[in-house]
Amino acid sequence: MSKNLTKRSEDYSKWYNELVVKADLAENSAVRGCMVIKPYGYAIWEKMQAELDKKFKETGHQNAYFPLFVPKSLFEAEEKNAEGFAKECAVVTHYRLKTDPEDSSKLIVDPKAKLEEELIVRPTSEAIIWNTYKGWIQSYRDLPLLVNQWANVVRWEMRTRLFLRTAEFLWQEGHTAHATRQEAIAETEQMNNVYADFAEQFMAIPVIRGRKTESERFAGAEDTYCIEALMQDGKALQAGTSHFLGQNFAKAFDVKFTSKEGKLDYVWATSWGVSTRLMGALIMTHSDDNGLVLPPNLAPIQVVIVPIYKGEEQLNQISEVANALVADLRSKGISVKFDNRDTHRPGAKFAQYELQGVPLRIAIGPKDLEKGTVELARRDTLTKQFVAKDEVVATIELLLVEIQESLHQKATQYRDEHITEVNSFDEFKDVLENKGGFISAHWDGSAETEQKIKELTKATIRCIPFDAKEEEGSCVYSNKPSKMRVLFAKAY
Amino acid sequence: MSKNLTKRSEDYSKWYNELVVKADLAENSAVRGCMVIKPYGYAIWEKMQAELDKKFKETGHQNAYFPLFVPKSLFEAEEKNAEGFAKECAVVTHYRLKTDPEDSSKLIVDPKAKLEEELIVRPTSEAIIWNTYKGWIQSYRDLPLLVNQWANVVRWEMRTRLFLRTAEFLWQEGHTAHATRQEAIAETEQMNNVYADFAEQFMAIPVIRGRKTESERFAGAEDTYCIEALMQDGKALQAGTSHFLGQNFAKAFDVKFTSKEGKLDYVWATSWGVSTRLMGALIMTHSDDNGLVLPPNLAPIQVVIVPIYKGEEQLNQISEVANALVADLRSKGISVKFDNRDTHRPGAKFAQYELQGVPLRIAIGPKDLEKGTVELARRDTLTKQFVAKDEVVATIELLLVEIQESLHQKATQYRDEHITEVNSFDEFKDVLENKGGFISAHWDGSAETEQKIKELTKATIRCIPFDAKEEEGSCVYSNKPSKMRVLFAKAY
Repeated sequence: MSKNLTKRSEDYSKWYNELVVKADLAENSAVRGCMVIKPYGYAIWEKMQAELDKKFKETGHQNAYFPLFVPKSLFEAEEKNAEGFAKECAVVTHYRLKTDPEDSSKLIVDPKAKLEEELIVRPTSEAIIWNTYKGWIQSYRDLPLLVNQWANVVRWEMRTRLFLRTAEFLWQEGHTAHATRQEAIAETEQMNNVYADFAEQFMAIPVIRGRKTESERFAGAEDTYCIEALMQDGKALQAGTSHFLGQNFAKAFDVKFTSKEGKLDYVWATSWGVSTRLMGALIMTHSDDNGLVLPPNLAPIQVVIVPIYKGEEQLNQISEVANALVADLRSKGISVKFDNRDTHRPGAKFAQYELQGVPLRIAIGPKDLEKGTVELARRDTLTKQFVAKDEVVATIELLLVEIQESLHQKATQYRDEHITEVNSFDEFKDVLENKGGFISAHWDGSAETEQKIKELTKATIRCIPFDAKEEEGSCVYSNKPSKMRVLFAKAY
Repeated sequence: MSKNLTKRSEDYSKWYNELVVKADLAENSAVRGCMVIKPYGYAIWEKMQAELDKKFKETGHQNAYFPLFVPKSLFEAEEKNAEGFAKECAVVTHYRLKTDPEDSSKLIVDPKAKLEEELIVRPTSEAIIWNTYKGWIQSYRDLPLLVNQWANVVRWEMRTRLFLRTAEFLWQEGHTAHATRQEAIAETEQMNNVYADFAEQFMAIPVIRGRKTESERFAGAEDTYCIEALMQDGKALQAGTSHFLGQNFAKAFDVKFTSKEGKLDYVWATSWGVSTRLMGALIMTHSDDNGLVLPPNLAPIQVVIVPIYKGEEQLNQISEVANALVADLRSKGISVKFDNRDTHRPGAKFAQYELQGVPLRIAIGPKDLEKGTVELARRDTLTKQFVAKDEVVATIELLLVEIQESLHQKATQYRDEHITEVNSFDEFKDVLENKGGFISAHWDGSAETEQKIKELTKATIRCIPFDAKEEEGSCVYSNKPSKMRVLFAKAY
C-alpha cells in the first residue's frame, strides 16, 4: 500500500495530499474548501484538544461558548479587524427556503425571509465576545477574565488544502480581559509559551518563539507572538499565535472597569489560538515515504498486534498470548489494538498500520509461540527485534518514551541544520532556492523592505525571535543599519 | 440573593429565565435567538459531554467532523428531511463584504461575491454525512459504520428560550450505517437506552422510553425512539431521540454495499442526538426557589469551603484546616473550591453557591477551630450538621452518593405521581388543566384524533411507551377501539 504514495523527493505537495487521504485523516467534501475530518484524524485532534484543554485549565482558564454568527454592525465595530476579515467571510442573508414554484422537487431561497441585518459566520470571535464582555465587566473584581472557546470558524479562502487552509476549520480561541497593560502582555507571553511547550513536548515539534512584524500581525492586535515550525520541505509553518490586543476591542465595544482606586479605564485584552492546522504541522514534521509517523503521545493506537496464522487452532493459541498482552498493556495506560480480522492478510494489515503511523507493531506467529517471543517493529526507524514475551511490556514502555524523544530530536536537528545566517541578498536568494529553511538575516525594520523581499523571493519574516541577541549589522536588502537578525522563510 | 428569584409557584417560566441568568449558566446574545453559554453553564455541559462520549466509545463509536454547510442540492435530496427543515434554516448566499461606498466606516455585502449555489447552515447533518458515506461504504466489510459528531447546529426558531429552544445549539449527532434492517433497529434501541441510562444515572432525571407517533417523528425517519422527562410544572420535555432511518438516506444519496453473498443493496441507517436542551431538563427537574440544585455527578464544584473570620490571623488558622481538607478531598477525586476571596462576605458567598447549586458547603469559623468541627450544609435539603474534622471526608463521600440517589428518587416520585390514567375526555381535560403531567389514555391510532386533541388541549402524544401492556379499551376522544395506552402531555 505504501508503494502507492508519491515520494517526498518527487513531489512533496502531492505526497502530503495523498498521505492525508490514504491514512484516513481527512478528505475534501461536497462543500468547496471544507473538509471532512475522518475518525482516525479526529482521534488525533481529540488528543491534542485534551492536552491543550488541560493546560488552559491549569493556567486558570474556563471554557464557554459564544454564537456562531456575528451581526454585521458588531463585525464592523473594530475597524482593522473588520477590514482584515471582510474579504473572506460567509454571509447569512436569509432564514428560510421554500419550494420552487417551477419545480416542486427543488427549494429556493424565500425572498420574504430576508434578514434585516446580515449575519457573518465567525471568522474569529473578538467582536461577538467583546460585545458580551461589556455586560460581564464592571469592576477590577471581575478581572482577569480568562475564557477559552472550542469552536468552528469560517474564512472563505480561495486556495485551500486539507488541514493547512480550509474554509471551515476547528480551533480554540482564548479571549482574556485584564486590568493592566502589563498583565495582558504577561498573559500573551504565557499562552505563547503554553503553545510552544505543547508543540515541543507533546507533538515533538520544535518551534521558534518570537513576535510578528507589523505587517504580519493579527488584524486588530498591537502585537502578535507566535510559534514557528519548519516542515521537511524547508517551508515554515505558523503553528500558533497569541495576540496582545491593547485596548482596541475594549474601545470598540466600550468595555470599561472601575479600578481599586475608583478610576474608570478601558480593559486590556489578549486572544490566542491554535487550529486543526496543527494536524498539517504534525504530518509534515515526522512522516516519511511510507506514510504517517506519529509521536506516541498523539497516537490513537500506540501498539497494534497482528496475528500470523494458518487455521483456527493457531489463531486461538496466538489470541491467548495476544489477549494477555492487551490486558497488560492497557493496565499500563497504553492504547493497544489486537487486529484479528479474518478479512485481511497480515501484509495488508502491516501496510495499513505503517501508513497510519502506529508507533509499535507486534507480530505473533507459530514460531513465536514455540520460542516464547514476539516480533516488535518500530514505525519511526522501521527496525524490528524479537522480544521475549515476559519482557514485551517493559520494552514497550521504554520504547514509547524513546520514540517520542527521538522524533523530537530528529526534527530539532533538521530544523537547526536549516537555520542559515546570510549576509547578502545573493546569499539569501541562493539559500532560499537551494536549501530552504529559516534564513537568519539583518533587516532594516521597514515594511517596504519586508514587502520588497516578499515580492522578489516569496519569503516573509516568520518572526523576530525572542532569543535574538543584539548584533550590529546591515539589512540584507537595503544595507541600512540593523541591530538584530530576524527569521525569513517561505511559509505555508 | 435567592430572595431575588421569582417563586416557582408564582411564575414558573419567569423563575426559569431568571435562574438561568442569575446562576451564570447562559444569557441571550446580540444575535437573535442565539445564546452565550457562560463558563459555569459550560462546565456542566462539559461533564455531560465527557460521560456521553465515554458511553459512545464504549459502544464502539468513533468521533469525526463534517462540514458546517450543506449545499442546497444536497439539502433537498432527501425530500421529507428537506421539507422538515427548510422552513427554519440559515442560508449563506455571499462570501465577501466590501466597504460601503456611501459610508466608509460601514460594510455591505459585495454583490459580486454571490455563491453559485446557496449553502445551508446545518440544522442536522444527515445530508452532508450520507453524501460522504457514499465514498466510504462499498462492501459489508465497511459495515457497521459507527460515527458520532459533536457540533453546533442552527434552526431558525421564532420563539426561543435559553437552552430549551435556541437558533443555534450544541449537540452530538450519531450517524450509523448497517448491513441489515435488524442491526439498524438494534442500534436505534441501544442508543435510546444509552441516553436513558445517562439521564437516570448521571443526571438523576427519570425518563420514559418509547416511540413517537408518525406525526411526531424526525423528518426522514421510519421510526423515532425517545426518552421523555417530566418537569416540575407538569410539562414534558423530550430529552433525547434515536431514529431508525430505514434506507431513506441511502436511497437519496445512492449508498449501496455488496453483501457477503455478493448481493448489492442499500445500507440501513440510524441517527441519534442529545443537545444543550438537556441543561433545561436538568434545571427544571431538580432546582428550587433558592436556585439551582445539581446532582453531584454534574456539579463543576461539588464542595465549597467558606471561611468565617475576623482578621488575618483567624483566616490563616482556618486556611490551614481548609487547605488540608482540599487536599484530602481532591485525593478522593472530589472537586472542591476554597473560596477565600476577601472581596465578598460569607453571606454573599453562601447565597451565590446556593443559587449555583453546589451540592455541599462547608463553613469553618473560630468556634469550629476550637471544637475541631466544621459546619456542613446540603444544598438539596437545605439541612446543616456539624461534623468532626476527621470525619468530614468520609461523610462527604457518603453524602455525595446519597444526594445523587435522593435527587433521582425525589424526581421519580414526582414523575410517578404525575402519570394519571384517564378514561374519558372530560377527565383528560380536567387532569391536564388541574394537575398536569403525563396522561395515560387510550388512543385510536389515527393522526386525525391526535391532531384534534392537540388543537383542543395543546397536549401531544409524547410517546408510546415500550413497557405499555396490551389492554383493551376505547379511544379517549373518538371512542374507537384501542389496544394500548399512550402518554399525552403538554410539552416544552
